[in-house]
Amino acid sequence: MKTAAVITIGDEILIGQVINTNAAFIGQKLSEVGVELMRTVVVGDDRHEIMQAFEEYHAKYDAVLVTGGLGPTHDDITKKVVADYFKVSLVMNQAVLDNVRERLSKRNVPMKRVNEEQALVPERCTVLMNYWGTAPGMLFDSDEKFFAVMPGVPHEMRNIMTEYIVPRLREKAVGQVIKHRVLRTTGIAESSLFELLGNVEEMLGGKAKLAFLPSQFGVRLRITVKAPTVMAADDIISDIETRIRSKAGKYIYSDGEVDIEDTLGKLLAEKKLTIATAESCTGGYISHRLTNISGSSAYFNRGVVTYSNESKTELLGVPEELIAKFGAVSEEVARAMAEGVRRIAKTDIGLSVTGIAGPTGGMPDKPVGLVFVGLSDAAGSIVTRHAFPDERLRFKDRASQAALELVRRRVLGLTNG
Amino acid sequence: MKTAAVITIGDEILIGQVINTNAAFIGQKLSEVGVELMRTVVVGDDRHEIMQAFEEYHAKYDAVLVTGGLGPTHDDITKKVVADYFKVSLVMNQAVLDNVRERLSKRNVPMKRVNEEQALVPERCTVLMNYWGTAPGMLFDSDEKFFAVMPGVPHEMRNIMTEYIVPRLREKAVGQVIKHRVLRTTGIAESSLFELLGNVEEMLGGKAKLAFLPSQFGVRLRITVKAPTVMAADDIISDIETRIRSKAGKYIYSDGEVDIEDTLGKLLAEKKLTIATAESCTGGYISHRLTNISGSSAYFNRGVVTYSNESKTELLGVPEELIAKFGAVSEEVARAMAEGVRRIAKTDIGLSVTGIAGPTGGMPDKPVGLVFVGLSDAAGSIVTRHAFPDERLRFKDRASQAALELVRRRVLGLTNG
Repeated sequence: MKTAAVITIGDEILIGQVINTNAAFIGQKLSEVGVELMRTVVVGDDRHEIMQAFEEYHAKYDAVLVTGGLGPTHDDITKKVVADYFKVSLVMNQAVLDNVRERLSKRNVPMKRVNEEQALVPERCTVLMNYWGTAPGMLFDSDEKFFAVMPGVPHEMRNIMTEYIVPRLREKAVGQVIKHRVLRTTGIAESSLFELLGNVEEMLGGKAKLAFLPSQFGVRLRITVKAPTVMAADDIISDIETRIRSKAGKYIYSDGEVDIEDTLGKLLAEKKLTIATAESCTGGYISHRLTNISGSSAYFNRGVVTYSNESKTELLGVPEELIAKFGAVSEEVARAMAEGVRRIAKTDIGLSVTGIAGPTGGMPDKPVGLVFVGLSDAAGSIVTRHAFPDERLRFKDRASQAALELVRRRVLGLTNG
Repeated sequence: MKTAAVITIGDEILIGQVINTNAAFIGQKLSEVGVELMRTVVVGDDRHEIMQAFEEYHAKYDAVLVTGGLGPTHDDITKKVVADYFKVSLVMNQAVLDNVRERLSKRNVPMKRVNEEQALVPERCTVLMNYWGTAPGMLFDSDEKFFAVMPGVPHEMRNIMTEYIVPRLREKAVGQVIKHRVLRTTGIAESSLFELLGNVEEMLGGKAKLAFLPSQFGVRLRITVKAPTVMAADDIISDIETRIRSKAGKYIYSDGEVDIEDTLGKLLAEKKLTIATAESCTGGYISHRLTNISGSSAYFNRGVVTYSNESKTELLGVPEELIAKFGAVSEEVARAMAEGVRRIAKTDIGLSVTGIAGPTGGMPDKPVGLVFVGLSDAAGSIVTRHAFPDERLRFKDRASQAALELVRRRVLGLTNG
């Protein structure tokens, strides 16, 4: 097994009502086991289109992974088309039926006829029991070809992929290894980073590929290597990583698909530091990100979202006169918020953000996108100023990223304000 | 122009490091103008694969929309392949060059040679000026075929799509209209909703399709109609919507791709009600969602994220003894948090959430996923209990959704606790 295609089935994906996160997950997993994903394709819940995609990709690639269209309602037709494609009937599977019954009873949902029909599976397929939902996975597996069908509900698909598909493909994938390593940077523009790295082609020496992937969270650098063995691939990647770090190390906050809240959480836990947040324009997004990490209660004490002016005064002791004189969006108020939340929470670090998210509320001297990030710790207080003129949610992404990065650098001694 | 395909280019999407949100957006827009998207396909940054996709889809469909691979760095090759596919050279475009220079200077980023190369465009194409980034869009347009190339950065693509592509396709799309309407429900399982609606085929009368789309936020119902005119399509959709609402109306919180925080925000603004939040396990996610809505400062006063026990006592006045007796995750503490935040913020509504997000921290009598949502207003306090055993982030989605839905129903008088 060297090549693969992913077929995602669902009108909701074609017309853009659901985003195709499944293809991304499957792509990651295939890459890990050394099977090269050549194409992902999306087709609607349409018999003819599905059949055509099955024929084209089953013939062209070694492995085909199909998701979607296995739900209990009338608009889901994938299972019937699979049976017709392999020219077999649908038969009742008792183990699947028992699983469906048990799952529904746990959730106190009554068993319906449409649920019973979920236990019908194509003859001759290997059933992949779905302990995370009611639609089973199905596998047609031979020496040359691998054809798997999984439900479209993301966490069900992920579990079936991890439990059944990945181990089987790992056994079948031979001959080459494809390895990626991602270095995540923030606080530097793509073209500046490109220039900082110097002669990239020389650095790669024809042995690897380097991609620049910018987003509102920063620029990710992805090193990709194909090699005969894992060890050979790792050696090449590590060598290139060392060269990149020697030039751009301080901008790199993680060496994988790890968010900055995760990196920072580990750092705070390791150094036994506690933190509290005071947010205005980010509206609780920073505390949300910090608490997305399991175990964050060890370092995150509390947060306040002081959206109104009086809440800044009442909760954080920011003087009314300070707000009146400098405005709620100012270096002075950011500093007072950071110091205030650190004082009331008795934490090592107080972190604050105040800014103008937009689209309204901008002024000539304080335009939409202006943000002040404040940090207070035992060594004193610092405030950084940023301009993130962007859509409201992207503004929140960028402002929270800058705030978390300021803490990371402060804790590591990479900034002295 | 009746049919279309979308080609997304980028290794990062194939291997799952970036999720293909662009295809979803383009799918929505095509649907709106009545062009039927038949396939979306993703290929890597590989000359042969890109060329093959161009040939296949350009021949097969009326319109082809390409995104990705137009960045300034060495790994982006789309523009060269486009020029070769149309057998033309790349030429310097002065207007694009001026735009790139102006944009970089605004951001204080120095102009590099790689940036200058962004102003090279294929001969004979119509340049779609990119005022939101540095890579221009390119269009090859004839009577029968439409071939557009856009940058992969989402907000740049969205602007180019909206400004240039949609108006042109609207002129060219003829003969039929495809209309969708989405009704978003929450608080009811997919199969229960299916049964509640009764005989769906009879309801549709062969004139429309109805899809059930479940997620952690609830089940969306999508009605799809193809008709000769917009008016005819709207009539059919409205009739079906009326039938659905008569049976499942109270579960429907929005009639479009509108999040519950948006629906609720409009409701609060309209009724001139103010709200404050006290969160534990959701970590600020509820205040984040509420403040994602522009204008939310009119009704959202403040939020507190009381992660530690002492912060519940200090900020909200929850008695230590109450926490000691019933535990931080309890009906009693949820009620005291809601009442406490309403009192300190002097708002009409106080909303609280306390629960066990997991994966750790569960106990036999209080398992992972247990959540209490508290609401306090002038009429008194209510607490609802939920079980959302799920991954940490999905847990936060579900808990915050239940909390926002409780407020919606309370404000509309759909619940009396």
